[in-house]
Amino acid sequence: MNDEQPVVKGHMVVTNDVITYIGEAEPPQHLLEQNVEHINGAKQAFMPGLVNTHGHTPMTLLRGFSDDQNLQVWLSEKMWPMEAKYTAEDTKNGAALAQVEMLLSGTTTFVDMYDRMELVAEITEYSGMRGMLTRGVIGLCSEEEQKQKLQNAISFARDWNGKADGRISTMLAPHAPYTCPPAYIEQFVQAARDYNLPLHTHMSESIAEVEQNVKDYGARPVEHLDRLGFFSCPTLLAHAVHLTDEEIALLAARDVAISHNPISNLKLASGVARLPQLLKAGMRVSLGTDGPASNNNLDLFEEIRFAALLHKGVSYDPTVIPASEALKLGTIYGARSLWKDEQIGSLEAGKKADFIALNIDQAHFYPMTDIVSHLVYSASGKDVLHVWIDGKQLVRNRECLLLDEEKIKFEAEASFKRMISQ
Amino acid sequence: MNDEQPVVKGHMVVTNDVITYIGEAEPPQHLLEQNVEHINGAKQAFMPGLVNTHGHTPMTLLRGFSDDQNLQVWLSEKMWPMEAKYTAEDTKNGAALAQVEMLLSGTTTFVDMYDRMELVAEITEYSGMRGMLTRGVIGLCSEEEQKQKLQNAISFARDWNGKADGRISTMLAPHAPYTCPPAYIEQFVQAARDYNLPLHTHMSESIAEVEQNVKDYGARPVEHLDRLGFFSCPTLLAHAVHLTDEEIALLAARDVAISHNPISNLKLASGVARLPQLLKAGMRVSLGTDGPASNNNLDLFEEIRFAALLHKGVSYDPTVIPASEALKLGTIYGARSLWKDEQIGSLEAGKKADFIALNIDQAHFYPMTDIVSHLVYSASGKDVLHVWIDGKQLVRNRECLLLDEEKIKFEAEASFKRMISQ
Repeated sequence: MNDEQPVVKGHMVVTNDVITYIGEAEPPQHLLEQNVEHINGAKQAFMPGLVNTHGHTPMTLLRGFSDDQNLQVWLSEKMWPMEAKYTAEDTKNGAALAQVEMLLSGTTTFVDMYDRMELVAEITEYSGMRGMLTRGVIGLCSEEEQKQKLQNAISFARDWNGKADGRISTMLAPHAPYTCPPAYIEQFVQAARDYNLPLHTHMSESIAEVEQNVKDYGARPVEHLDRLGFFSCPTLLAHAVHLTDEEIALLAARDVAISHNPISNLKLASGVARLPQLLKAGMRVSLGTDGPASNNNLDLFEEIRFAALLHKGVSYDPTVIPASEALKLGTIYGARSLWKDEQIGSLEAGKKADFIALNIDQAHFYPMTDIVSHLVYSASGKDVLHVWIDGKQLVRNRECLLLDEEKIKFEAEASFKRMISQ
Repeated sequence: MNDEQPVVKGHMVVTNDVITYIGEAEPPQHLLEQNVEHINGAKQAFMPGLVNTHGHTPMTLLRGFSDDQNLQVWLSEKMWPMEAKYTAEDTKNGAALAQVEMLLSGTTTFVDMYDRMELVAEITEYSGMRGMLTRGVIGLCSEEEQKQKLQNAISFARDWNGKADGRISTMLAPHAPYTCPPAYIEQFVQAARDYNLPLHTHMSESIAEVEQNVKDYGARPVEHLDRLGFFSCPTLLAHAVHLTDEEIALLAARDVAISHNPISNLKLASGVARLPQLLKAGMRVSLGTDGPASNNNLDLFEEIRFAALLHKGVSYDPTVIPASEALKLGTIYGARSLWKDEQIGSLEAGKKADFIALNIDQAHFYPMTDIVSHLVYSASGKDVLHVWIDGKQLVRNRECLLLDEEKIKFEAEASFKRMISQ
């Protein structure tokens, strides 16, 4: 992710959970102590693990259950009735399936927003993944229930922040301005300040949502949230498809992070976010898959490719989002959107050893003209051979070493069967 | 590809090169003679091989050589100077690499337009693929040279049409209205009539091209070609991004086929073709990768996914190009665009046994809600395990049985190295 030298043909040393050397020259001898495991990386490309900055992992169970529908039909007639049937077991099964899929496609860090987040956290603790987790809260309910949900969200965030050797961190997440009344959002802002937690929410995903916000609150979502003090806390916004120049300027001034979800935005016909403008404004911008019911997979290499291709076509400018920028969106910019770029997102001495190895000895990587181009325009998650997080190998030759893939697939299938038979 | 029953859980029988049975019930005994090879398809999805209706296979050698550039810079400073260096060996090496890549990602039939097409035909004869091949001719040269190129194109088309047990068919291809003067295009039309061959050309790919056509010939490309009698022959147009309602009506009336190349159109910032309108007009529409230098890979599952997603997002209508339609674009509609839908494009008794098997026992295919949705929104070419064409297995467990993948990758790399060192 270093512009001067994007590709190094050489050596990398990992000591415990940290990269201690990377370079063309032989590594210093003192780093190579007894019991060193040597990995031959010939015909493989090593790169930072991908960072997926928005998703709802338990929704893997609804992958392919309803496609090609209008958003309101999809949500109210398909997603919500099914989600109401989720037991704790189903939530766990969906989340575990998602983690298998993410690991096998090279994602090492993910953001997750859903209810019963402690179940996702338990799987994350076990799976070895790095997760920024948050209980998503819909506030269209009684004040009593609101209060209980907020308490639950705060408890989760405080209990799990920094757990699993620091692999798990947490946020607070009112679901969206259109599903949480203003007074309730203010309570989240207060809690975020009190407990020093970032905020995460969906915003300006569709035109209808923006128009409804103006009707309900006399302001578009950006101004509305800004008035509620939202952006005074570190904030990660999902989608932000429909933004004016002024809104981009305001969000940039507030140093707000945005998770761009190109595939989900296309599939739900929400539109095309103004990614080139967001980057030009110097914002923290990154990529998310969104839930697997609106994508329908969790391969972040696809988001990288869509980001590189889509914005060229719709802007009629083939120079926007060049390959190097697209690759950064899925790695170091992802880390930056989660305020973790000191820790992860690139292969540098001192950073956490979160990295993946791709098999580049395949026809679609030949000739070896430009590895960055190939990773963006030709690679997919299925080229990932190995995955390490915190220096620990979690995938070897496309086999999950900790998660039991066979059992997880079986149980996910059983969960779905049970839900549709009800 | 049958709307009433898109998915069959049952049996398929192939006798020699033809499908002789498909259905839920046990196949009739008389089809199961001695020496039958039984294939257990458990946890696999069998589907028709994909049909890639536009490409330039030798250009695989330029994959990743130049990205994120303006079209004119890309063509005149990068592609053309490199293409001028191609020896016969390079053309063969690029074409062979492309065929390995296409087979390994489930494409069984492809259209190819390039020079020295006899070299591509030789590889196709050997590889077992089904190809509709045409020598692409640029007419910006002397009349003498024009004549020679046309003769060469006709000779190739006549020599190879129907060869390789009918796997190879041919067309005539003036490169584009902006690279062939009108009188020269008329000679192609005449030859197409004389020898009963279809025509293939690039048309209305970019706005600049359409505007230039108006300047040069007083008409947009559709009217221009129509005046030259082009559409009086069976015609396959690549791109056709910029079309008016009237042009769509005219092309539909002429029963012209269109190869939609969504990824190439995005990457070169040409724009977004009006796919929903083309389908609504009842046209023969299908998908192509275009050359690997503007894509940069040959996995047609990606074109299927882009077709399904892109048009929803830009039209703000999530119901356009539903999954079943997207899958047809890559299969039966591809066959229809090549006037071969009686022969290939679906799994039906009586059709050629061109089919592929995907490993669906992977996390991204769970739960098994809707296999058509999964093939469109979650699958990729890398899920392809086996490939058969004309009943002959060409890929087994992702290994090419006829083409020597290792040698082809090595030689493609050597060709590229030689070209850049010159």
